[in-house]
Amino acid sequence: MDIQKNSKELYAEFREQMAKIADVKNAIAVLSWDQETYLPGKGAGFRGQQITTLSTLAHEMFSDDKLGNKLQELLSRDDLDNVQKKNVELSWEDYSKNKLYPASFVAELSQVTSESYHAWIKARKDASYAVFQPLLEKMISLKKQECDILGFEGHPYNALINEYEKGMTTTTLDQIFDEVKSSLSPFLQKIAGHEKPNNNFLKTTYGKDAQWQYGLKLLNDMGFDFEAGRQDLSEHPFTTSFNPRDVRVTTRVDEQDFNNMTWSCIHEGGHALYEQGLPVEQYGLPCGEAASLGVHESQSRLWENNVGRGISYWKHYYPGLQELFPGNLSGVPLEEFYRAINLVEPSLLRTEADEITYHFHVMIRYEIEKGLIDGSISAKDLNHTWNEYYKNFLQVTVPNDTLGVLQDIHWSHGSFGYFPTYSLGSFYAAQFYQAISRQIKDLEERIANGDFATLLQWLRQNIHVHGRFYTSNELCEKITGEPLNFSHFMKYAEGKYGEIYRG
Amino acid sequence: MDIQKNSKELYAEFREQMAKIADVKNAIAVLSWDQETYLPGKGAGFRGQQITTLSTLAHEMFSDDKLGNKLQELLSRDDLDNVQKKNVELSWEDYSKNKLYPASFVAELSQVTSESYHAWIKARKDASYAVFQPLLEKMISLKKQECDILGFEGHPYNALINEYEKGMTTTTLDQIFDEVKSSLSPFLQKIAGHEKPNNNFLKTTYGKDAQWQYGLKLLNDMGFDFEAGRQDLSEHPFTTSFNPRDVRVTTRVDEQDFNNMTWSCIHEGGHALYEQGLPVEQYGLPCGEAASLGVHESQSRLWENNVGRGISYWKHYYPGLQELFPGNLSGVPLEEFYRAINLVEPSLLRTEADEITYHFHVMIRYEIEKGLIDGSISAKDLNHTWNEYYKNFLQVTVPNDTLGVLQDIHWSHGSFGYFPTYSLGSFYAAQFYQAISRQIKDLEERIANGDFATLLQWLRQNIHVHGRFYTSNELCEKITGEPLNFSHFMKYAEGKYGEIYRG
Repeated sequence: MDIQKNSKELYAEFREQMAKIADVKNAIAVLSWDQETYLPGKGAGFRGQQITTLSTLAHEMFSDDKLGNKLQELLSRDDLDNVQKKNVELSWEDYSKNKLYPASFVAELSQVTSESYHAWIKARKDASYAVFQPLLEKMISLKKQECDILGFEGHPYNALINEYEKGMTTTTLDQIFDEVKSSLSPFLQKIAGHEKPNNNFLKTTYGKDAQWQYGLKLLNDMGFDFEAGRQDLSEHPFTTSFNPRDVRVTTRVDEQDFNNMTWSCIHEGGHALYEQGLPVEQYGLPCGEAASLGVHESQSRLWENNVGRGISYWKHYYPGLQELFPGNLSGVPLEEFYRAINLVEPSLLRTEADEITYHFHVMIRYEIEKGLIDGSISAKDLNHTWNEYYKNFLQVTVPNDTLGVLQDIHWSHGSFGYFPTYSLGSFYAAQFYQAISRQIKDLEERIANGDFATLLQWLRQNIHVHGRFYTSNELCEKITGEPLNFSHFMKYAEGKYGEIYRG
Repeated sequence: MDIQKNSKELYAEFREQMAKIADVKNAIAVLSWDQETYLPGKGAGFRGQQITTLSTLAHEMFSDDKLGNKLQELLSRDDLDNVQKKNVELSWEDYSKNKLYPASFVAELSQVTSESYHAWIKARKDASYAVFQPLLEKMISLKKQECDILGFEGHPYNALINEYEKGMTTTTLDQIFDEVKSSLSPFLQKIAGHEKPNNNFLKTTYGKDAQWQYGLKLLNDMGFDFEAGRQDLSEHPFTTSFNPRDVRVTTRVDEQDFNNMTWSCIHEGGHALYEQGLPVEQYGLPCGEAASLGVHESQSRLWENNVGRGISYWKHYYPGLQELFPGNLSGVPLEEFYRAINLVEPSLLRTEADEITYHFHVMIRYEIEKGLIDGSISAKDLNHTWNEYYKNFLQVTVPNDTLGVLQDIHWSHGSFGYFPTYSLGSFYAAQFYQAISRQIKDLEERIANGDFATLLQWLRQNIHVHGRFYTSNELCEKITGEPLNFSHFMKYAEGKYGEIYRG
């Protein structure tokens, strides 16, 4: 009987059980990584089935009553340390939530996800939303069921957001995106009145191998440990982790566009540094996981934008880059390069958007998801709805569905509620970066000298090491002294782009 | 109650359960593939743990009493078709065998295997058998126990061979290896009296990329479906299959040795064609698995030696190969190239041996394993025993333990009884190839014209499609009209090498 065991024993058993569940989940992550990188085409069907079987197993293992009893017993113990206590509390929370899902629902979701993903691939190839629509409808119906399974207060969509960003609601997001609209729209108009930076030289031919090698160098300099991870190619860049000693990033290389690989590489690198920095001894436990998706995204955005698109970063790298690609860059001064990589211009694709218009892309997805879940928007003709949004908010005309409603993988994966975390990540990043700059006074100088270790150490000590111990809100208050505040992003944007667009 | 279900329902349930077990096993195979190809160094510890967790799960799933009851019920039904009946019978056999192992034994074997593997790695590094000896002794003791657990008739080693080659016994193997000794030894002496082919030009520099591309071309031409598989690099070449639609081969490239990649590529390609040819609708069931390790090896050896090291094959490929590597081969006529790739020469390493002396390497391991299991050979000073065998049978002097008794991974993994299947594979291959040549009269001409599809179709229809329906013996009789008969290999060797060593 668990009641007779001392807390140390009991906790050790709990930990071992959680590690086994993590083993299965991480096996799924390996299968998924392989699916995106190396899987031969005909292998997709069986792979989907294998992932479904393991997902069901992981679900069963995490629904085990013995684990529940152990957790309840541990909750009653008062001789655990703070981290142990937090692990028990969060595991109980996750466990209870997991128990809500019927096994049949989990299996169906996994199956529809696999089918949906393949329909999305085909739809993109055919540039036809109609191919994807029936599967998307199935998915939406399942996601509505999921809202009911999980329960919610206020808007049903809150149940889904909460899966990625605990405590976040449509009320807060509506406020934030209202600010995006009210502050960023006039800002964009102001910018549009100035001369556009020339970025043609970024679209000349940059050799594939040279780019690939350069990406590896950037990752290495950031502090990515290649003994504890690797980079591969995939159609869509992503980061996945099997444990802090094995973190995989992927990228893609476009010979005709310097931007394509560079920013994805630094972005995924930021995610990966977070994963490599999580406490390895907390494997399988909440305190060994990221705080939230928003915080995860803050790490990628901070490296991509606040660091990687900053002038200090390129003070360090630009001379070497010019040497590497003399035909493309030898006649281009640093200031022109810097303006070019920070070109603000409404566009079709979220993943290639600049850091200002980006938030309109996210806002559109947020509005659509909310509407699909509460029924105010229909999946029928969603491509037209999408195109109207793009016309209204970004003044761009969507030429086909592949460049429109089919551009993101998320819905095919059933990841509803995920998109808002992208914007939250940028806003956290701006707020964090300002706090860091107050504490490390010579941060920009250090970056200009190629010293990224000081920044990484700060992130490790103040964010990574805590895992899920703090919620994103708590973490934000702890680090910056206040909750998430959009004005920091606005201040950052005005400072940076005011200067760029003054010239 | 299963008893009330009709056979169709019951069989469908059994099949579904087996497919789930296969999903877990195939997930393990993906994790292992990744371990050998892409895993970063620091990820090894957690990966081992993840594989152990999944192995335990698969074992538990296959020990489920409900599965046992279902199988027993199905065994009593008389309205199953032949393939269904065979699947039930073989599954029951596998299930019953799996149930024989006490959990304590499984745990101890797993523990000793892990320790033993690490001791072997260290022993190889130190070139010291003494480092490995204590663990090998533990392993042998466990393997003796395993013989008792499994039960056997005649020699206890029969229990272990049976795991890899059902129905094979020391009586048959003793006969076969007696023939190897009595026929191949004088044959080798005869060859030694002739001038040795010059193969220096195979050891000149062959560019890495060109070799890699060439290997892909050979695989493609053989009929390997790259939509249902892929090739990657690893330290030791291997084939693994996650299902017939996803079969992975690996190879290695040595710029200073044309042999290294070429034969491993064709060899693994042979294994892979078998896996791609297994009936996909039998996924997870015995009739979806290979007949035996010996038959598997017959497929790799047939392609590697009977086809790939044959003159017809190079009549087709050699002009192109000369164009690809003019610096290495433009002055070398086809006949000289053919003699060079068929150089027979006693050597230290099994994996690099020619197709004649190879069988002495296997025979030595077979004799040693048999002796270790029945106690007539001691693990103490096994390196000396090994070296004497190499002196007696191959007339080579072993300079150190790494190149001697420590060269193979098998014993550290506990794979006793595996080695004989390597020779059986070659002997089956020779016998099969002769049968095929009788049925496809113009086989050599077809190969010389680059038509491999006819041969593959034959293998598909006569071997691959049956899975485990026939034992290796039954298959051999069905295809060739008689049981395994070493004389076919001897006839092949005398014909081929008599000609090569005449000149």
